[in-house]
Amino acid sequence: MDMRIDLQRLKQDLTALGSIGRTAEGGVSRPSWSEADLQARRWLLDRITAAGLKPRVDAAGNIFGRWQSGGPVILAGSHLDSVPNGGMFDGALGVLAGLECLRRIKEEGIRLRHPVELVAFTDEEGAFGGFFGSYAFTGALKADDIPNLKDSRGTRIVDAMTTCGMEALQAPTAQRDPTEIRAYVELHIEQGPVLEAQRASIGVVEAIVGIRRLGITFRGRADHAGTTSMTDRRDALLGATDLVQQGRELVLTEGTPASRLTVGVMQVQPGAANIVPSEVYLTYELREVSGDMLRSLADRSSALIAKVAAAWGLTVSVVTILDIEPVPMAEDVQARIATAAEELGLKHMRLPAMAGHDAQVVGRVAKAGMIFVPSKDGRSHSPAEWTSDDDIERGANVLLLTLLNLAGGK
Amino acid sequence: MDMRIDLQRLKQDLTALGSIGRTAEGGVSRPSWSEADLQARRWLLDRITAAGLKPRVDAAGNIFGRWQSGGPVILAGSHLDSVPNGGMFDGALGVLAGLECLRRIKEEGIRLRHPVELVAFTDEEGAFGGFFGSYAFTGALKADDIPNLKDSRGTRIVDAMTTCGMEALQAPTAQRDPTEIRAYVELHIEQGPVLEAQRASIGVVEAIVGIRRLGITFRGRADHAGTTSMTDRRDALLGATDLVQQGRELVLTEGTPASRLTVGVMQVQPGAANIVPSEVYLTYELREVSGDMLRSLADRSSALIAKVAAAWGLTVSVVTILDIEPVPMAEDVQARIATAAEELGLKHMRLPAMAGHDAQVVGRVAKAGMIFVPSKDGRSHSPAEWTSDDDIERGANVLLLTLLNLAGGK
Repeated sequence: MDMRIDLQRLKQDLTALGSIGRTAEGGVSRPSWSEADLQARRWLLDRITAAGLKPRVDAAGNIFGRWQSGGPVILAGSHLDSVPNGGMFDGALGVLAGLECLRRIKEEGIRLRHPVELVAFTDEEGAFGGFFGSYAFTGALKADDIPNLKDSRGTRIVDAMTTCGMEALQAPTAQRDPTEIRAYVELHIEQGPVLEAQRASIGVVEAIVGIRRLGITFRGRADHAGTTSMTDRRDALLGATDLVQQGRELVLTEGTPASRLTVGVMQVQPGAANIVPSEVYLTYELREVSGDMLRSLADRSSALIAKVAAAWGLTVSVVTILDIEPVPMAEDVQARIATAAEELGLKHMRLPAMAGHDAQVVGRVAKAGMIFVPSKDGRSHSPAEWTSDDDIERGANVLLLTLLNLAGGK
Repeated sequence: MDMRIDLQRLKQDLTALGSIGRTAEGGVSRPSWSEADLQARRWLLDRITAAGLKPRVDAAGNIFGRWQSGGPVILAGSHLDSVPNGGMFDGALGVLAGLECLRRIKEEGIRLRHPVELVAFTDEEGAFGGFFGSYAFTGALKADDIPNLKDSRGTRIVDAMTTCGMEALQAPTAQRDPTEIRAYVELHIEQGPVLEAQRASIGVVEAIVGIRRLGITFRGRADHAGTTSMTDRRDALLGATDLVQQGRELVLTEGTPASRLTVGVMQVQPGAANIVPSEVYLTYELREVSGDMLRSLADRSSALIAKVAAAWGLTVSVVTILDIEPVPMAEDVQARIATAAEELGLKHMRLPAMAGHDAQVVGRVAKAGMIFVPSKDGRSHSPAEWTSDDDIERGANVLLLTLLNLAGGK
């Protein structure tokens, strides 16, 4: 008999976890180290134990579950935390499908050449900056940075973790030797519209997007909206609005279909209807899956920003807020995911991941792969986030076959 | 001997008043009904009394000073209040030059056919909305609106005036019969660069600008900055920035040199670097001295706003925040100001007033005129506001001759 996951059991777990941190709007608020996150952690440890797996929490708060000992391991997982009023699938699906896969492997008593290990990484979503757990696990977390990690209310992660009986400063000791990681596989909802539009059940992620996020400040001169003629002004908003339009044209004409430019923040000073703006701050975020294209768009954007400032008689200063290189997924893992989908007769396609994932962090030190399942209307980070039971079952079965294939136990 | 004002005495008054509400930056903060405003009011009443004039405060808090009784009167004045950290000339010059003119007329013992009366109007600058005093004086203040007038901290003018022993709800009784007003003349700094650039000492204001201020909200859809392709977005900021650029083009190509478009406020929701903006609010302020041109620009702007919203797949709502018609100054008063300037051998020019003034309120019910003197570098509403002694003297002497001419006492 072909081995398959138990959808009803997986659904029960998804529903139970989705009720922790439930919001009035029907979403989930479970930011890292919140009361809801702590409750979810306790619940997951109980589920791991109930499955007859060995639970463990490392110094970064990452939660693990294993059956067989030894190494190197095949890791399967994602994260438990959510954005404020987010959905019940983002992260949770990867963790609980991983748990279900381990349960099935144990139930079948399959001997694997390489053990499979469940992982739920700490603070993927960024309540305290993002990727705290996977950074620590891969050795990318710098001890000096930890005291400065704060949430939006100014609470330090050091204090938040102390409340939970943990020492954040010890998190770097969670690093695992990369040679002990044979592969990492993360099942995740797509959070975009591509699979649904293409009527594909399975996405084989080929690379995770790189991000170049700039903070740009144009400075001109505050003037009276009446007495200063339009041609005598140095209006910072004219530079900022020109950049938004020309930046979009640049990315549409010079980029790829996977290129993104988003200006999500724009703050105008002094901000009065009858005063010409003296200063405008905006964020300018480029995303691309090709590192070369990302660099090219960033370079052309720098030239454009300077050109726009000069054209409107403004000064401009630019700071880099985020600079994340694109991370290709391992060809080997991609091939095994595709093979698993074919074995199950599922339509699959390669596509890039346009959001950040723990797989991009693990992928820097070890072979990593991601399996995407469709998101209804591409919605995510919202109570409207939804994936059908059929797609959950398909994704979890592709994960199971991929893990067995990688672990040499099929 | 030709009658002239006493510059030293006027300067002493300007310096004394300028020290009330002095800021650390060297500016003046004297918003209406503030502690500094109350001190300035007491000081002015003392100066009026010291000059042998009869002081009076009406139900709107407007301060008057007269020597001869009877009517109809020639009014000269402006306002005592200032914007936060504004300059020492805006408003103060018109009031104190008016006081100096009355002092000189009284000293010379000149019998006037029509009495000259000094006025300092309440809240011209708008701590509580603007023009409270001149609206009440001309019958434009609606009793029903008074309870809703609040300052930026939410304090109602009713409560602010109660503290000063006055009943704001009684302000409409300050209305004066328009037939009792023969003319109103306001000396003011230009607050713009025109006179300085043209090396003219005196500006004869031909009209006061009309203002159409709109509050515009574009609404689209919040989307993930990575997973949503650039062509699938309904980005509210793309509509807002497009409007800023196209609105400017519209006003530059279809307007006059006196046309102004200012977007001084822009607020982006939800305002995160990695979320496509779902909503943008902006102010869109048109100014023009021709009523026909203002209407034409407003109509074309409405069409443009709808076109831009449709082009970006957005919905849009527009509210009118301010709708002030341009007010022409009386030809008769303009001619007498020009005659006075010529008599004094001063270079003068006609020009529009691009900021709001009490003269536009009084001008709706009676003959009104304004005399402008140069502002250094066009700066105003700032500690940098400056007008030279020579220009103060010239402006005050033009005011004196204009008043004598209008009062039939020269």
